[in-house]
Amino acid sequence: MSASLSSPSNPWSVSDEAYSANDVEKNGNKFLIGNGYLGLRGTLEEHGPAELAACTISGLYDRDGDKWREPVNAPAAFGVKVSANGEACSTLTASIVSHRQWLELDKAVHYRQTRLRLSGGNEITLASSRFLSLENKHLGVLRFSVNTQEDCELLIETGIDGDIWDINGPHLKDFRAAQIEGMLTLDAQTGELAIPVTTAAVVHGEKLPAPEFAAGPQSVYHRYRLQARAGDTFTFTKYIGLHTGADTEAPAASAADTVTNAATTGYESLLESHVRCWEKRWRNSDVRIEGDEDAQLALRYSIYHLLIACPTDDRASIPARGLSGQVYKGAIFWDTEIFMLPFFDHTQPELARHLVNYRYHTLDGARRKAAEYGFRGAYYAWESQETGDDACTLFNITDVLTNRPMRTYFRDKQVHISADVALAVWRHATLTGDLDVLTDGGAEVILECARFFYSYAWYKPERDRYEILDVDGPDEYHERVNNNAFTSVMARATLDIALKAVELLERERPDFCAALIERLGFAEDLPRLADMRDKLFIPAPDARTRVIEQFSDYFKLEDSTPAALKERLLDPNEYWGGANGVATSTQVIKQADVVLMLHLFSGSYDAATKAANWDYYEPRTEHGSSLSPCVYALLAAELGRTEWAYKYFLRTATIDLTGKSKQFVGPLYIGGTHPAANGGAWMAAVLGFGGLRTGEGDVVCIAPRLPSAWTGLSFRFCRRGQWFTVSVTTDEISVSADPVNTAQQDFNLDGTPRSCSPGETVKAARKNLPER
Amino acid sequence: MSASLSSPSNPWSVSDEAYSANDVEKNGNKFLIGNGYLGLRGTLEEHGPAELAACTISGLYDRDGDKWREPVNAPAAFGVKVSANGEACSTLTASIVSHRQWLELDKAVHYRQTRLRLSGGNEITLASSRFLSLENKHLGVLRFSVNTQEDCELLIETGIDGDIWDINGPHLKDFRAAQIEGMLTLDAQTGELAIPVTTAAVVHGEKLPAPEFAAGPQSVYHRYRLQARAGDTFTFTKYIGLHTGADTEAPAASAADTVTNAATTGYESLLESHVRCWEKRWRNSDVRIEGDEDAQLALRYSIYHLLIACPTDDRASIPARGLSGQVYKGAIFWDTEIFMLPFFDHTQPELARHLVNYRYHTLDGARRKAAEYGFRGAYYAWESQETGDDACTLFNITDVLTNRPMRTYFRDKQVHISADVALAVWRHATLTGDLDVLTDGGAEVILECARFFYSYAWYKPERDRYEILDVDGPDEYHERVNNNAFTSVMARATLDIALKAVELLERERPDFCAALIERLGFAEDLPRLADMRDKLFIPAPDARTRVIEQFSDYFKLEDSTPAALKERLLDPNEYWGGANGVATSTQVIKQADVVLMLHLFSGSYDAATKAANWDYYEPRTEHGSSLSPCVYALLAAELGRTEWAYKYFLRTATIDLTGKSKQFVGPLYIGGTHPAANGGAWMAAVLGFGGLRTGEGDVVCIAPRLPSAWTGLSFRFCRRGQWFTVSVTTDEISVSADPVNTAQQDFNLDGTPRSCSPGETVKAARKNLPER
Repeated sequence: MSASLSSPSNPWSVSDEAYSANDVEKNGNKFLIGNGYLGLRGTLEEHGPAELAACTISGLYDRDGDKWREPVNAPAAFGVKVSANGEACSTLTASIVSHRQWLELDKAVHYRQTRLRLSGGNEITLASSRFLSLENKHLGVLRFSVNTQEDCELLIETGIDGDIWDINGPHLKDFRAAQIEGMLTLDAQTGELAIPVTTAAVVHGEKLPAPEFAAGPQSVYHRYRLQARAGDTFTFTKYIGLHTGADTEAPAASAADTVTNAATTGYESLLESHVRCWEKRWRNSDVRIEGDEDAQLALRYSIYHLLIACPTDDRASIPARGLSGQVYKGAIFWDTEIFMLPFFDHTQPELARHLVNYRYHTLDGARRKAAEYGFRGAYYAWESQETGDDACTLFNITDVLTNRPMRTYFRDKQVHISADVALAVWRHATLTGDLDVLTDGGAEVILECARFFYSYAWYKPERDRYEILDVDGPDEYHERVNNNAFTSVMARATLDIALKAVELLERERPDFCAALIERLGFAEDLPRLADMRDKLFIPAPDARTRVIEQFSDYFKLEDSTPAALKERLLDPNEYWGGANGVATSTQVIKQADVVLMLHLFSGSYDAATKAANWDYYEPRTEHGSSLSPCVYALLAAELGRTEWAYKYFLRTATIDLTGKSKQFVGPLYIGGTHPAANGGAWMAAVLGFGGLRTGEGDVVCIAPRLPSAWTGLSFRFCRRGQWFTVSVTTDEISVSADPVNTAQQDFNLDGTPRSCSPGETVKAARKNLPER
Repeated sequence: MSASLSSPSNPWSVSDEAYSANDVEKNGNKFLIGNGYLGLRGTLEEHGPAELAACTISGLYDRDGDKWREPVNAPAAFGVKVSANGEACSTLTASIVSHRQWLELDKAVHYRQTRLRLSGGNEITLASSRFLSLENKHLGVLRFSVNTQEDCELLIETGIDGDIWDINGPHLKDFRAAQIEGMLTLDAQTGELAIPVTTAAVVHGEKLPAPEFAAGPQSVYHRYRLQARAGDTFTFTKYIGLHTGADTEAPAASAADTVTNAATTGYESLLESHVRCWEKRWRNSDVRIEGDEDAQLALRYSIYHLLIACPTDDRASIPARGLSGQVYKGAIFWDTEIFMLPFFDHTQPELARHLVNYRYHTLDGARRKAAEYGFRGAYYAWESQETGDDACTLFNITDVLTNRPMRTYFRDKQVHISADVALAVWRHATLTGDLDVLTDGGAEVILECARFFYSYAWYKPERDRYEILDVDGPDEYHERVNNNAFTSVMARATLDIALKAVELLERERPDFCAALIERLGFAEDLPRLADMRDKLFIPAPDARTRVIEQFSDYFKLEDSTPAALKERLLDPNEYWGGANGVATSTQVIKQADVVLMLHLFSGSYDAATKAANWDYYEPRTEHGSSLSPCVYALLAAELGRTEWAYKYFLRTATIDLTGKSKQFVGPLYIGGTHPAANGGAWMAAVLGFGGLRTGEGDVVCIAPRLPSAWTGLSFRFCRRGQWFTVSVTTDEISVSADPVNTAQQDFNLDGTPRSCSPGETVKAARKNLPER
């Protein structure tokens, strides 16, 4: 078939072999491509706003009226309309002979090939490939072809259209359309901050005639009329540039440059350098599983989603729904720090650094939020956008039973966010061994977060202890609780990190350290932090059961199960939390809370405690958040409960493949991709099954616990600038140090100590410990 | 008319001149009689459970299964069924020629007179008078008469019936019926605690034949068959005795004694001594208003309700709905301390003492509640029954929109109750000057309440201050707030009172004081209380507006009005508070909160602050509680805003006359009498319009502010054992000291100092100050 642009037959491919109108919305997420700056939903070229076609811009936000503030979607430039003798050649109207849509994960290129039968019997084949350049984030490239089986008049229309899908839009206004020397441009600006957004496009196609030019109030088009003969294939390439005032001085000129340069370079060459960039990423980030093709594909697909969503500068981070649209206001949550950063820290430290720096970039927003609530230090936004001010509203959910906004306390009370941030900075610093992350803002972030917790906590003189009151933990179904174990442990860790960071900097960068403490007026706070660290109340495991109470009086709540509560629902989309949700007055929790704490602070708790808490909380967890199953997988793997771990791993890793995640909270659509679950899949595979532990000490531990089907697992990671490849088989653990490494690394391989010099491979036999 | 038993034509009478089936429920409250131990609803003798006929026993509670625990209603003994030639002579079935039902407030006697026309044309007149003896609280007396206009066979049936109205019953079981020497007895016991309850009755009537005896599974009856001739009137007296195992060793024997003795004494003599007891009460408690008959009746009626509800021993207090039934679980709330005790303290100090002692009697329950929540000291029940354990549930309201129980925090967070109690003890001690109230338990109550607040409060080292967090103030529409001004001021007052009480007792009763501190282990707590008193954060009036923020961040809530919120209701009975009520996210409040604080701590705030806060909060108050209008009346009167004060006074004073109070919170029936509003009416009249201030100092201030219609106001009060009669006219204030007084008292009469010796009358001209 002449219109075929690529072969899908490789192990890096995700594909759909038939067209279903019901899957269009889901496929928009499943076949998403991205380059960290733009995310292009996996809709087809003939799809428009009704099919949720969108190209979302990272880090550019707008608020229309008093609606929710959300990311700006770019004018639609990847759309193509084809008609034959006046009849639309579209999956939306024509009968479909065959259809295939696929994604090549190794190069992040999206393909489609569709054979349509028109009313007169003629068959038209549409094919395309498209990618968002990883080399130049402002560039997108579309190659499109049309084949006709009969003589006909073909009309091909493609351009730039401001009529796009928005959840809380419109966000662009003051459109100006132009055509200059064959290049189409559409200038616009955002409504709230008047940030200019320019889209430019050029179409190259050998057999194409000169186009007609057409412009609407917010669109600009080229139309090609072709007298086609049976068997003809017309192929063209469209180079699309997008620049905004948020990242370019002169976006109009830059967009024109991007497009002109790309057209000069040409499709093949652009694709080649794009693929080279992707090869570089995959080299360090890929994880190989032997013996389980489904798991392999799901994990790779998860990693793909992490890589396409990660920005390459400090002004943005990865939103909770990646770049798959405007859901969750395109905001950055704790998802990034706790669920995604471990992947980037271990396999893409340079990208990780951007994510870490984003929190320094938004530190002033966090300071404003702390001050707004009457606290000192930095209280990070629960839903962070470009400034760090909180996009989270006080009424974040609408009650489906009354259609009234429901007061939630995510914004006010989910204080652990500041600990998540501080922890992530410190983890990045210790894992990379690069003190610059601290001196470039990281230390300031940590100190301000610690200061926040000191200012948030309360002291009870008669008990000589501090407590952290009135918080939401990760389990959002129980709001405004006291002494949430997760939050308190995280807060104490933040205090501890702050004190350790100061100690480290005083030793290594004394001038910087003194200046920072002086500038922040922090001298008085240091002894306060130490006092609170030593006297902060942390819920301890019960002496008999070893179960840790999730928060004060949690055990007094009605004991129940998710299945039992489901029976109580009056509406299937009803929110389980809030003041009167079915879970609120029970022990049923939304997601891993104590169990997440036990994973993050694994070294502080013994295996029996972990097992007891896993046993207690697992049947009480609804997994109402996609962040939950991976945590149960992680701890289960650590306990050697590999079958449980595998079940939760698969659930996590396939979330965006199956599209079977929660689509609604109340009447609110929450669809999109799930980068935190994707990060959780990597964690479950590498930290869980692979048993990798790169803590603060000098020795890296690897204690694998493979699922029964897996005959091998291999992955790479970086620590203090040294790269290692780990291969686990059923019998053996092998670690190879890259030849370019500069330092030796000590390992503990399932209990066996090994030291690995640059270029060396060390091995140890696996010990297959029983499960707990 | 021969069946008329009393003339209603006196200024102490409340009456209904016609019968309306719709008013039966309302009249049950309106025509309530009581003697502090029993409350008999104002239904007619032919009414039964369907008409909410009930005789509620004070201080006896029972729980049936997992339903709400509530007071026990006595077996029905005041019912009479009459039939003529087999046709019921009842307002429920016969046509009504005339009907009158009235209450004589001066003697607390209930009357009815009803002329019925039967189907054959015969007219029957039923008349009755009944009272619950104030001399012997276990005794009730009913005189009943039947007159027939035609010859007929009359059947009169009266007895004791265990088939009664219960909200969450049944509460009585194991019935045993008997007839001994003409006396009917019905023994039963409560289900939860197996407390025996015996009702006994004897019927005396000159013309009555020997009765037939009939007994059912839970009832016992006498039936009288009479061959009546036209014009005949049959009159009988029924003596009813009720004793329970909660207050009598041998209730059966005691009930028999009560009835036997009463029958020997006879109706007239019993009534006479009952009336003498009432005369004694009214002498000190009545308030006279000149120039406003409506206000006079309403105020007198309010005082009547206070007097009929007040128990005469320490084991009970006045429930929120008096003795009008089982609404609100028959529980004692802060209503007693803050809204009723001022009346009793000033006019019935001996009764007041019982109410104060009740809190000592229930101190262990308060200690248990504090311990249950992890605090020290005494945390009084929000809904207190006989043990002081909290009858308030965690789900106190059902959502009408979803029919789900709604989590409320009245039980957990309305901590001001312990301050209300401490304040009331101290007020009683200072007003009576009787230290015994402190040594008989009051000091222990105060210290344990203060200890509770210390244990409840949190210290913020960086601000060197304590705060009281996470409370419900009086305005229950806003739950779990921080730094509620009312609560914090009350808590500080409690600390202050505790320290003052210790100081006083150390001086006056040093041995007792030392032993108490030793027994309570309180030595360590004393300096803590002083520290907290000095460093407790109290929201201050805004420097510019003088408005005090009701709680932290109250001013950030949406500003609205009750009228605007009413428009948002989806159901007229919807609860306005809770997590998602229409008021919750707005500044609309349920009831006086800051304004109540300004009344209680009038001496600590200047007039401009009071005026500013009245102006701010009044339009934002829904008055969703019957406790609210009187507080606005009180502060308005103090500010000289007599027209506003009068409006709110009338609303308060007429609540049980008009029956126009809130009848439902969600689907929950909350009808009944409103002793707190009754107490509020007295406060508004005497403390508000009368301007009486008997503070802790030596001088009593009287600064009257009469409504324009009132030409005179007079009342009595007692201070430190000395009784005074105050008369206010438009020009003058006159105070007369009882001749039996033993000490001189200094007064400040509208700014004029006067000293008043026993038997002396002093006067001063009134100053008519402008309103603020």
